Parts: sequence; structure tokens; C-alpha cells
Amino acid sequence: MTTRNLRIVVVNALMHPGSEDDEAVHAQVERARILRIGLLEAGYDIVASLPPDMFLPDRIAQLQPDMIIVDAESDARDVLEHIVIATRDERRPIVMFTESDDTASMEAAVAAGVSAYIVAGLQSDRIKPVLNVALARFKREQKLLDELSDTKSKLAERKVIERAKGLLMERQRFTEEQAYQKLRSMAMSKNLKLSEVAQRILDVEDLLG
Amino acid sequence: MTTRNLRIVVVNALMHPGSEDDEAVHAQVERARILRIGLLEAGYDIVASLPPDMFLPDRIAQLQPDMIIVDAESDARDVLEHIVIATRDERRPIVMFTESDDTASMEAAVAAGVSAYIVAGLQSDRIKPVLNVALARFKREQKLLDELSDTKSKLAERKVIERAKGLLMERQRFTEEQAYQKLRSMAMSKNLKLSEVAQRILDVEDLLG
Repeated sequence: MTTRNLRIVVVNALMHPGSEDDEAVHAQVERARILRIGLLEAGYDIVASLPPDMFLPDRIAQLQPDMIIVDAESDARDVLEHIVIATRDERRPIVMFTESDDTASMEAAVAAGVSAYIVAGLQSDRIKPVLNVALARFKREQKLLDELSDTKSKLAERKVIERAKGLLMERQRFTEEQAYQKLRSMAMSKNLKLSEVAQRILDVEDLLG
Repeated sequence: MTTRNLRIVVVNALMHPGSEDDEAVHAQVERARILRIGLLEAGYDIVASLPPDMFLPDRIAQLQPDMIIVDAESDARDVLEHIVIATRDERRPIVMFTESDDTASMEAAVAAGVSAYIVAGLQSDRIKPVLNVALARFKREQKLLDELSDTKSKLAERKVIERAKGLLMERQRFTEEQAYQKLRSMAMSKNLKLSEVAQRILDVEDLLG
């Protein structure tokens, strides 16, 4: 990410869609301008500005941005829902700028994995450090989540392998070492993971009753 | 934490300790004032303002604050080191306010588990939302870390139990079920965890060769 510009998708959440309130529209335009200036000055590419609707997941899948920035003037729980769906399969750093200090919305956003949640802090010259912190935080959290998922898989695989080994020891009067070697040689000859061979043995056992 | 005020320890990192530069001293005093106002207006208790020195871990252990706020005008890597040591045994939410946008310092802070890292954003009226986000983030990360540590323990315990079970099956010609029941009854009679009994069996095996 240091060799090319960060590709950004901005999601604009209008406070009152279709509102004819000039002041609200003006405030929204001004926010969008501040954000754009900050992103351009930081050297980032805005690849799209999108509304938070049902097409968002598909657009994000097409565009593959490095980061999603949500410009949500007000409470943004409905926006968050769209973003969560759009990044469920592939996590991405998400930064939310909002003017609302509603605690429940904020907690929902953090719990949903938003990397930065900034209340009343949309200023052009602060955007770059905010995005840098968000990226670092995303990487750290991703590392934790990967480690957790990896450890959970290992635990699940181990359970399957041990059950299959126990079955072999019981039925074939194998020692633990023999049972393990049997699983290993089956895995190698079938070009499967140890846990996959183990699962097949357990499946057959289930079938045969 | 909703029934009483959040208890805060502020760590003041002077840019030039002992400096006689009036302007730097003035800036530092002004920063401390902004922070104090923001904390008091948000209804938080400042239980102490401490320098980042070798006594910090002991003071934090005595004071047991709900949150640590670092006011670091400049690059704060040395400050961070003291804070990391001071919260190693018991994690606490840490918020850093700094004027330095040095990326390496920022990344080090996030990697060390700092819950919020705010560059050039020390404003009284923004302190409360920043602290709220930091608290929510700390809770989320703590939950992830707890889950990871729990899953790792389960994996480690499982390895020990399975090894002990295998040993019993091999030596005593037990079925897997019998080996498991043997471990269980030993654990119950000794009032130990299954993994502790398993570890003792393996220890004895090691001793006997």
C-alpha cells in the first residue's frame, strides 16, 4: 500500500434524503468537500462516492477498495448495516465520520468492526492521520481475528483427529503411535489433510453404525 | 462504569523536560488545561497527573484507574514503553493525544494495544466522544483477546488430555471410553481438572521413562 495510492470508496449518508432544507443540503455539500480535500491532499484516490443502498455490496465487490469511508452526518445505524453486509465476506478498513454522539450507534459500529469512529472531527488536515491510525488498527485486529480463527480450526481438527485415532486404537488394537501412523499414511496416499482423513473415518463409522 | 464517574490517570509527557522555552511551556500548560476541561465537563474524575517514569507501574497499580490518558505533545515512544509495562499484567484502556504524526510511533502505539490514538485533535468538546469510542474499542478487543487465550488454553489442555488418554489405552489396553472415564474419576477424586490429572500422568510417565 506504500507503492500506490490508497483506493477509497466514500459512502455518503444524507441526513434527510429528498429534503428541500437548504441548510441541511449545504452542510452536506460542505462535509463532502472537506472530506474530498483531505483525501486528495493525503494523496488518496476516491474511486467512487456511493449511497448506502442495497447495491453497495456488489459495487464494493467490483471496486475492491482499500478502505471505506462513511460520511454520516446523523445517526448511521442503517448505513452501518449496509456496510457490514458489504464487507462480511472480505473485511476492509472502515472509517466513520459522524456528527452524532449517540452512544448506542457508536458501540454498534465498534462492535461491527469499524476501525475508526470519529465524532465531530471532520477536518481536512486531520483526515490523513485518522486514516493511518484506522489502517494500523485494522491490521492489528485482522491479525487477532486470523489467529483466533486459526486456533479454533486447530482445536476442531484436533478433536476430529483424536476421535478417529481413538476409534482405530479401539477397533484395531493399535497403539496411539500406530493409529497416528495409519492416519498419516492414509492422508499421504489420498493427498488429504490429516483432519480430512480423520473426518472420513468418523463418517464411515457413523454410516456403519 | 455507568453508576459512577470514570476514574482517569493522566500521564503528561513534556516535550522538553527542563526546557526554559516559554512558548513550549505555555503550549504544554494550555494542552493540560484543554484536557482537564474536557474531562471535567464529561463528568470524569482525574485521580492523578503523573510523569512517565519508572514509578508509573506502581502508581497505576495503586490507583487502579478505569482509563489512562497520555498527553504527549511530541513523539511518545518512550512514554509508551512506560505505559505498556504499567498495564502488562492488567490491561486498561489507553488514549493517546499527540501532535506528532510520525507513522512509526503511531503504529507502535496501536500494536501495543492503545485504544485511541489522536493526532492534533485535543479539543475540550471532543474528548467525551473520543473516550467513549476508546472504551467500546477496548471492550471489543478485550473480548477478542479473552476468546483467543481461552481457545489456546483449550487446545493446549486437549493435547495433554489426549496424550494421557493414548497412554492409558496403550498401557492398560483401555478403550478410548474407558481411558476417558479413568481420567474423569481420577480428576473427581483428586478434585483436579481433567487436564491437570492428565499432566500428572504424563509427568509420571516421563519420570519412569
